[in-house]
Amino acid sequence: MHSVDRYREEFVAYLSQKVETKEPENLYDPMVYILGLGGKRVRPVLVLMAAEIFGADYRKALDAALAIEIFHNFSLIHDDIMDDAPLRRGKKTVHEKWDINTGILSGDAMLIKAYQLFENYEGDTFRELARLFSKTAIEVCEGQQYDMDFETREDVTIPEYLRMIEYKTAVLVGASLRMGAIVANTSEENKEKIFEFGRLLGIAFQLQDDYLDAFGDPESFGKQVGGDIIENKKTFLYLTSLNAAAENVAVQLEHLYSINPLDATAKIEAVKNLFESSGAAELTRNEIEKYTNRAFGVLEELDVEESQKSLLRSFGHNLMERQV
Amino acid sequence: MHSVDRYREEFVAYLSQKVETKEPENLYDPMVYILGLGGKRVRPVLVLMAAEIFGADYRKALDAALAIEIFHNFSLIHDDIMDDAPLRRGKKTVHEKWDINTGILSGDAMLIKAYQLFENYEGDTFRELARLFSKTAIEVCEGQQYDMDFETREDVTIPEYLRMIEYKTAVLVGASLRMGAIVANTSEENKEKIFEFGRLLGIAFQLQDDYLDAFGDPESFGKQVGGDIIENKKTFLYLTSLNAAAENVAVQLEHLYSINPLDATAKIEAVKNLFESSGAAELTRNEIEKYTNRAFGVLEELDVEESQKSLLRSFGHNLMERQV
Repeated sequence: MHSVDRYREEFVAYLSQKVETKEPENLYDPMVYILGLGGKRVRPVLVLMAAEIFGADYRKALDAALAIEIFHNFSLIHDDIMDDAPLRRGKKTVHEKWDINTGILSGDAMLIKAYQLFENYEGDTFRELARLFSKTAIEVCEGQQYDMDFETREDVTIPEYLRMIEYKTAVLVGASLRMGAIVANTSEENKEKIFEFGRLLGIAFQLQDDYLDAFGDPESFGKQVGGDIIENKKTFLYLTSLNAAAENVAVQLEHLYSINPLDATAKIEAVKNLFESSGAAELTRNEIEKYTNRAFGVLEELDVEESQKSLLRSFGHNLMERQV
Repeated sequence: MHSVDRYREEFVAYLSQKVETKEPENLYDPMVYILGLGGKRVRPVLVLMAAEIFGADYRKALDAALAIEIFHNFSLIHDDIMDDAPLRRGKKTVHEKWDINTGILSGDAMLIKAYQLFENYEGDTFRELARLFSKTAIEVCEGQQYDMDFETREDVTIPEYLRMIEYKTAVLVGASLRMGAIVANTSEENKEKIFEFGRLLGIAFQLQDDYLDAFGDPESFGKQVGGDIIENKKTFLYLTSLNAAAENVAVQLEHLYSINPLDATAKIEAVKNLFESSGAAELTRNEIEKYTNRAFGVLEELDVEESQKSLLRSFGHNLMERQV
């Protein structure tokens, strides 16, 4: 087994070799650009790691890993258009650097390119990878749609919110691990369980992201702390506060989520106080712990040797031991 | 063998049964809407027709036909955004009826849904369909990119133009026929030839569309005659005129393609005169005939009984015997 860093290096080397521009340049340059912006490469690393855990050479899984990374970046390009985002990883988004039409069309081509990478696998493996990929990709679209719908809905429930983050983020983490398992041709039970580990960890990670957006350390969080509050985003913290708070406190919170002050410092402080006093902050911490524990519980059930689990376990711990 | 109308009816009935809205509605309603706008359903009819020509029950090809129709409509939604088009088949385009974000995301989901329909085919058939589909889909994207690039390029060559219409339009016609052939599990040679028939006929059709845009009968053409001239679109007629005309005539044509008069009547007349006097109109008619004849020539080489070819032949004639 390699270290996470080693998998990442191997993957990035493979990506550089396989993803290059060609004619028509305006279609393929944006693909090379966004795939070259870096990032932690969490999803492709998980594909490679899972393949080796279940006994395959990780190199057999490089094309599946690349498909997942290209799909993820396709979704970033289209999401950035929808969110009107100017920056991605500190650089211009594709639609800012080129234009919206280029972003739409390059994204489309990337989605198709991702499918083409599965053609490097034989028979049943090809079928199983493509099938899982389609199922996951459509759920990611549904998650993005729910997320956009929630912006204008006042009656979002907590189960609806959990389904949204599951679809938008967590299923792709689970699918990445499952793809490695498919390439390694392990048992159906192992495939199910490694997917479940990823799905649960993905939900925990996204809930933690919500939490850190309000309570994270500005030094280490990497994004602007309070960003969700400024944008009146109905996160798990917000929905849980509304549920847990007394009627008059809920009205206060809803009021704060209806204003857009130029200087948001006071608003952020007030909202954070309500998140704490309503008990939502603690409930959110408990929920993160619950999903994390469930994820690690499923990991223990995997039918592989103990030594094989340790890398996944430490990967999970690293992911969750951010700046809480 | 059924008639074209019968295939269309059977296909539309299948579509209505298979394509229905579900949650999240904003993702799936646009899919139902655009697929319900009608149209000639040329591509799915070709899938069904080809399947029966090569000895399969057309019903076996319904999912492949639906995949092709969903893909075609995905490309219409995204193209309409890129072209800022308000209307499609006389009704509001998806991004006009909803918004651009909805058009982007619904289109993405449709592309994935198209792939999922191939899952209804077993082993090698699934693989062959998905592989052909990806190759074709990426070429359609490249064709759209070339088309957009040409808007701002002054040095487009005739071979480049032909490749653009081949990718943007013709390969999907060829792929539709080839999908029917794949479902029927005919010989590799038949698959190649039926694809080639569709590809050549598709190029002929698109060249004819260029020609009719200038010289068609306003009563029967279906689109505004002169529309390409008003938009200064570098069609086959225009590029051929520039090639064939004397230097001073070419300068005149380029000038006409640099102005945007409010009343375009005089401009359209002047451009049409140059298309005629330069010999480009005749050269274009010859080119249409050349591609049409090549298409029908390939049809004759198919290894199926004569009676099986007649439907394709009459389909081709109907397609090309528009208002020239």
